[in-house]
Amino acid sequence: MKMNAYVAGVGMTPFGKHLDKPLKTLAGLAILDALRDAGLQPGDLQAAWMGNAAAGVTVGQEMIRGQVVLRALGIGRIPVVNVENACASSSTALHQACAMVSAGLYDVVLACGSEKLFHEDKLRTMGAFNGAVDVEDPKGALKVLENMAQAAGETFDAAGAGESRSVFMDIYGLMAKQHMRQYGTTREQFAMVTAKNSYHGSLNARAQFRDVMTVEQVLAARPIVEPLTLPMCSPIGDGAAAVVLVSERKARELGLRHPVRIRASVLVSGWDFERKGESVGGLAACAAYEAAGIGPGELSCVELHDASAPSEVVAYEYLGLCPPGEGGPLVASGATRLGGRLPVNTSGGLLRKGHPVGATGCAQIVELTEQLQGRAGARQVEGARVGLAHNGGGAIGLDAAATVVTVLTRED
Amino acid sequence: MKMNAYVAGVGMTPFGKHLDKPLKTLAGLAILDALRDAGLQPGDLQAAWMGNAAAGVTVGQEMIRGQVVLRALGIGRIPVVNVENACASSSTALHQACAMVSAGLYDVVLACGSEKLFHEDKLRTMGAFNGAVDVEDPKGALKVLENMAQAAGETFDAAGAGESRSVFMDIYGLMAKQHMRQYGTTREQFAMVTAKNSYHGSLNARAQFRDVMTVEQVLAARPIVEPLTLPMCSPIGDGAAAVVLVSERKARELGLRHPVRIRASVLVSGWDFERKGESVGGLAACAAYEAAGIGPGELSCVELHDASAPSEVVAYEYLGLCPPGEGGPLVASGATRLGGRLPVNTSGGLLRKGHPVGATGCAQIVELTEQLQGRAGARQVEGARVGLAHNGGGAIGLDAAATVVTVLTRED
Repeated sequence: MKMNAYVAGVGMTPFGKHLDKPLKTLAGLAILDALRDAGLQPGDLQAAWMGNAAAGVTVGQEMIRGQVVLRALGIGRIPVVNVENACASSSTALHQACAMVSAGLYDVVLACGSEKLFHEDKLRTMGAFNGAVDVEDPKGALKVLENMAQAAGETFDAAGAGESRSVFMDIYGLMAKQHMRQYGTTREQFAMVTAKNSYHGSLNARAQFRDVMTVEQVLAARPIVEPLTLPMCSPIGDGAAAVVLVSERKARELGLRHPVRIRASVLVSGWDFERKGESVGGLAACAAYEAAGIGPGELSCVELHDASAPSEVVAYEYLGLCPPGEGGPLVASGATRLGGRLPVNTSGGLLRKGHPVGATGCAQIVELTEQLQGRAGARQVEGARVGLAHNGGGAIGLDAAATVVTVLTRED
Repeated sequence: MKMNAYVAGVGMTPFGKHLDKPLKTLAGLAILDALRDAGLQPGDLQAAWMGNAAAGVTVGQEMIRGQVVLRALGIGRIPVVNVENACASSSTALHQACAMVSAGLYDVVLACGSEKLFHEDKLRTMGAFNGAVDVEDPKGALKVLENMAQAAGETFDAAGAGESRSVFMDIYGLMAKQHMRQYGTTREQFAMVTAKNSYHGSLNARAQFRDVMTVEQVLAARPIVEPLTLPMCSPIGDGAAAVVLVSERKARELGLRHPVRIRASVLVSGWDFERKGESVGGLAACAAYEAAGIGPGELSCVELHDASAPSEVVAYEYLGLCPPGEGGPLVASGATRLGGRLPVNTSGGLLRKGHPVGATGCAQIVELTEQLQGRAGARQVEGARVGLAHNGGGAIGLDAAATVVTVLTRED
């Protein structure tokens, strides 16, 4: 969907383990940060879209998650919509907020994502992940895995799936094996994604992990599920991120410095019944490029959904950053590393910045806005003018349940 | 917010106890019913807003609730937004869908609400209700009750609150006592609400309760919390409701028979920090009347949020159906009964049709659409041309966390 809204301010908490901070504190910090960045007051907000995926399971706040957060900040009497789309919850919130501003319905709105995944009882955290597939079909997730295994010419070993590890890591493991078999992608190439993102994360004060890992260290780490080791899987984390969006009129009135404009935001959900074989991510990207009038060759930097290291390789391909099958060679070439042709996940990505699921979508916009405005410090991509964010969530059938692709440009 | 969208079709399941039907079956039945009513196919839908409040607690489907439902119907690859605002979840879904269509972003969309509240373990159901207040502030709900009790000149007895009964019934009990003290409203007048709605419900094949109750029977029923007896409290229930909305252009193309147009839909959330004393429902109603260019005197029928019998009396007042304090006399006058000046809750309301929380908002639109199109059978309000729906959800501070007021008109 073609959009026309401006990012007036962004904010986020460090991602990591925040057992001492209630959900409303985390979200509140991010929102106040974004308002300060925009030079606006809480009372200036006309509406809010609040993304969260798991607080019902991890916090017990099954309902009115956004109102609880906003009340603690003294924000009341505005439309508040609680939005959920698994790991794409806050990019969906942003999509909705952006559509409303672009349509002229509001001038100043908030999109926020927050999540507390850490819980003293680790089974609660795992239970949250398992709520991102069809739970009324108890064999649904395992069936998906068996089908994927078959396609990858592998046998699927269900032991431990969904208990000692998120069911998603089994999905990513099978996806990786299929890619290796089909295109000759190697474990080393997957490990290069983590190594690259660990370097980026080391430069980001808000990243959950700041140590730099070599390919050898990544490969030698604890195995999770073939071919993934621990640092090839995005970690459990808590955190929040917020974006204040304004209309073109309001952006002019505020006299935004280095204005960043959202040109396109596309949400695609659910399963492809026509079996065209195109991934939901690919469909969303094509539609976003078309709506923005911008092709992949014009991008300066990308934040994409590296929920696992192979996820980044596969996403290169369906986002059109390289031809199918060439994701492995692309990361190996160094093109997607800071200083390369098209730096990807300069924030450290989900793998290293962290992945508090409902917060991830907005956090990607935080990174891209700072890049486009030239305030990313040691992570700065020189002359960045066009950014793309890609955020996926949940599993339905053999694909993501929801994917949002957003295209942003610097306007001055 | 001023709106311009048309109701192309409506559908719902009977409300009641559906332990044998998964969430996706309930929602699926309502959606197919609405599509059939609209003469449209699943493939015609361009986007969907899916309202649900409690499936994380009652079903375990913490995420991607809408995608799971839609996939079962063969609906994929469209934007799906899962929306939550406690008992106002599906009116919020409708509000979002309506805004998008009114802004010209889509031509054919779905708003759906579904809920499974019954659970073999009743504590799970009660736990769901308790997720509609600020859970990170464990004394929050009780503090609200203490404050309300003080305002009503009563002492609050916490025993049993939130366990043997929903914390909301304590809130409604105190609200009732305050109204009695301030305006001289009587228990008999509250009971008249249930008696009236039981008559309406007896005429509705989809109502959870179809027996007609007298005022005496209502008063003699099992006490829940002063001054409420069991039939003065909305019941636990399962069910789903769906609305297909289309743009004006599409409505013309479809040649809708007796077109029903949504003129206004206003969402107001959260707590009044300025302590102006105006309820969130009153604010939403004022804004909706203004946006629609229609006053309360022009209404033909109303579906309002009678989560308890006193709730209906209080809502008469803040919706402007009578002056403050005259809600008791209004119901006693018979004006809000079928055949009266302004029939209210002809469906039976939440009290008798039932209140599967996330489904209620869309179910109100189902009833009003059928009334405005002259197909409400024995419940028909003669010559109905203008309807108003009022749906509230959750508790924050001393008020509802979210309220949606929708105004609809028949256009031919």
